[in-house]
Amino acid sequence: MSGVAERMIVIGGDAAGMSAASQARRRRGRAELDVVAFERGHFTSYSACGIPYWISGLVPERDQLVARTPDAFRDEYDIDVRTRHEVTAIDLDRREVVARDLDGGGEVRAGFDTLVYATGATPVQPEWARDEVAGVFGVQTLDDGAALLDWLEHEPRPRHAVVVGGGYVGVEMAEALVQRGLTVQLVEQAAQPMATVDPDMGELVAEAMRGVGISIRTGMTVTGLTERDGRIAAVVTDEGPIPADVVVLGLGVRPNTALAEAAGLPLGPSGGIRVDRRMRVPGVPGVWAAGDCVESLHRVSGMPVHVPLGTHANKQGRVAGINIGGGYATFPGVVGTAVTKVCELEVGRTGLRERDAVEAGFEFVTVTAESTNRAGYYPGARQMTVKLIAERPSGRLLGAQIVGWSEAAKRIDALAVALWNGMTVDEMTALDLGYAPPYAPVWDPVLIAARKAVDALSR
Amino acid sequence: MSGVAERMIVIGGDAAGMSAASQARRRRGRAELDVVAFERGHFTSYSACGIPYWISGLVPERDQLVARTPDAFRDEYDIDVRTRHEVTAIDLDRREVVARDLDGGGEVRAGFDTLVYATGATPVQPEWARDEVAGVFGVQTLDDGAALLDWLEHEPRPRHAVVVGGGYVGVEMAEALVQRGLTVQLVEQAAQPMATVDPDMGELVAEAMRGVGISIRTGMTVTGLTERDGRIAAVVTDEGPIPADVVVLGLGVRPNTALAEAAGLPLGPSGGIRVDRRMRVPGVPGVWAAGDCVESLHRVSGMPVHVPLGTHANKQGRVAGINIGGGYATFPGVVGTAVTKVCELEVGRTGLRERDAVEAGFEFVTVTAESTNRAGYYPGARQMTVKLIAERPSGRLLGAQIVGWSEAAKRIDALAVALWNGMTVDEMTALDLGYAPPYAPVWDPVLIAARKAVDALSR
Repeated sequence: MSGVAERMIVIGGDAAGMSAASQARRRRGRAELDVVAFERGHFTSYSACGIPYWISGLVPERDQLVARTPDAFRDEYDIDVRTRHEVTAIDLDRREVVARDLDGGGEVRAGFDTLVYATGATPVQPEWARDEVAGVFGVQTLDDGAALLDWLEHEPRPRHAVVVGGGYVGVEMAEALVQRGLTVQLVEQAAQPMATVDPDMGELVAEAMRGVGISIRTGMTVTGLTERDGRIAAVVTDEGPIPADVVVLGLGVRPNTALAEAAGLPLGPSGGIRVDRRMRVPGVPGVWAAGDCVESLHRVSGMPVHVPLGTHANKQGRVAGINIGGGYATFPGVVGTAVTKVCELEVGRTGLRERDAVEAGFEFVTVTAESTNRAGYYPGARQMTVKLIAERPSGRLLGAQIVGWSEAAKRIDALAVALWNGMTVDEMTALDLGYAPPYAPVWDPVLIAARKAVDALSR
Repeated sequence: MSGVAERMIVIGGDAAGMSAASQARRRRGRAELDVVAFERGHFTSYSACGIPYWISGLVPERDQLVARTPDAFRDEYDIDVRTRHEVTAIDLDRREVVARDLDGGGEVRAGFDTLVYATGATPVQPEWARDEVAGVFGVQTLDDGAALLDWLEHEPRPRHAVVVGGGYVGVEMAEALVQRGLTVQLVEQAAQPMATVDPDMGELVAEAMRGVGISIRTGMTVTGLTERDGRIAAVVTDEGPIPADVVVLGLGVRPNTALAEAAGLPLGPSGGIRVDRRMRVPGVPGVWAAGDCVESLHRVSGMPVHVPLGTHANKQGRVAGINIGGGYATFPGVVGTAVTKVCELEVGRTGLRERDAVEAGFEFVTVTAESTNRAGYYPGARQMTVKLIAERPSGRLLGAQIVGWSEAAKRIDALAVALWNGMTVDEMTALDLGYAPPYAPVWDPVLIAARKAVDALSR
């Protein structure tokens, strides 16, 4: 029907959804494609990863975390962005969605030719956190962050924080609260915080955290809260209560799939929505999904995994949008790369941890090499620890972790690219990595670790 | 003949030679292998790359640059190190070398079963620099560095330096001399200093150098020197004289092959000694070569190249030593990775420059992406420029260059590993690189550049 544009509807106006929308728009103009994006919150395309730095004060203004406003999408991309609109149902037979106007009230029904499901992830909310006790915060959205900041900045100013959960968000928030001058206790159910690295490397992180005054309570389970006059008074644990006047939850996230499940979209074993390499939902023509709500192929284990991270969401959204726009692009999976900074300690990881390698059925060796980020004689040389996990007997790299005090974290990228390409540690010993005294010893720490792994494999 | 050890002779006691010696020793004990190393200078295994930082004062003591002393090799590795012994001839028929004792006088003859040729490189010495004028220095050896420091520290203290040559050593020395408070003019025959990157990227380096007060004179040829009372007075150029009371030469190096040529060892087109993947000299049984005196395979162009760099020398020496010791190792070539710091500006490069790609016959596109080392909102975010060169139409990465103000140089490693593995820029857009606000924007600068290259290839 010439003259009638196709309609693309996007559910979720953050990284994945808006990348898909803008990429599709770049390839197909208004006459061809009508793009509508429904977003439950007030914002589009913001950096959730930046929230801890806003809370700490390092980033002074909330709006610095917003990459592109709804108006910018309207003006620059001719995308009809409807913020504060929550999609409540997807009807695949009628090919329409139902959205509720959260401010104005009322309901919108909109038909689609193409649907992009990009609802992100929702924080894990334990039973005990469901009651509305003032002073308990998640840090998933900008609104969450604003509420926490408001709590921190108004009388009676809280002085004692408990952070529940020792993943990236928990650790970063613990640091942010210490920087604001609060006492901070981090409660983690497992034996170590930062379980995204192996325990030996995680212990280096824990030491750094203790070094700035964070009290780490591991192997401890939170079972409830106590309140006084509606305000949080303590966190109750299996080892007794911990007084607190502010509690931050960092218990991880789950793919936000409620709407998808109701509509019958297929979920994978990781709990995320299944997608093919082009980000299509298999078996559901015209429906795409991207971002923290989908599962991805882990290129090392070959297994589907849920890795909620802005960089993947952006890439997946871009891939969906290019394909919707008539181009060709694929998202070939992840290798599990992540970096973070914990109280000046830099942490990078990629691939499988030891426990992942065991679970995936690999036989392997592990080695840990101590070296420095610069030539030992160059001023400012600091310790850097590189751990490698390599399949036995093939020598194929399975995973790597780096912990160091300066210019350490991003060195994981070279290892991530090696992993991506299926290199063996023997091949890696020959890699031509940059050498100069301000940047590396003559044997780069990565090469030292690779040599050590070759030795371990020969034993 | 049981009971008689084989003899391994090493010519040149720096990185390559001593790596070969110690690796062979690790695998074969004294009863099996007798290891003798002849070194013309006073030192073994030192960091020539560290000399500019010693001259600048950043590294206070010469001995900090010495990785392992002759005594350490004797005591820990049972290697018979003969410093101040210059090998003057190799007799392949008799399988012996002749060495002159530079201090004691006299000559030593020593037979070998295995010979490792590791004589390094010699600085390019123009005709005009051959006269002995006091105040003109190379910076190849620790003795060179000591002589220069002595000149700088004694009355009449020099105040005006000319550095001849704008490669890594010239640029690093110019900075070192500025840091010591001298005025510095850098004279370069080509149109730009730092010609190891393309002119557009080199201009960023030149700006940074000018920013700290280095005067850059390009397109200028030095034709001679003038002296007063035996001391340097000026550098004579095709554009007139430049007064100077200290001159540093940074005109590059050539493989030190005089002895090899005399003995009939084969040289390759780059001027370096030919070696196979195991560092054997082809056609000459029992003779090996490694380090700055050999040529290497460039894995991108497929051509032999001479890349004198400590990291290659160490790897090549290790490979030779493992093989001599009865193990198996190969040196599969280089991709031309290098990093340096120029007045706080960080520079990384790998693979082919535009001119190299033209010379090698490639058709290609180039793209340059401006981004930042951190999320734009994260404090301390600084500009980072990434340039990629990709073959057309295949999209295969041919080369990459990075210039930035902070935490930039070592990011070349991820690109070096991508290049090593023959990745295309399209494949690279999906790479799983570390993302967190202190370390990268959500689209890593490398990924932004790869996307831009994909766009350029589609036009």
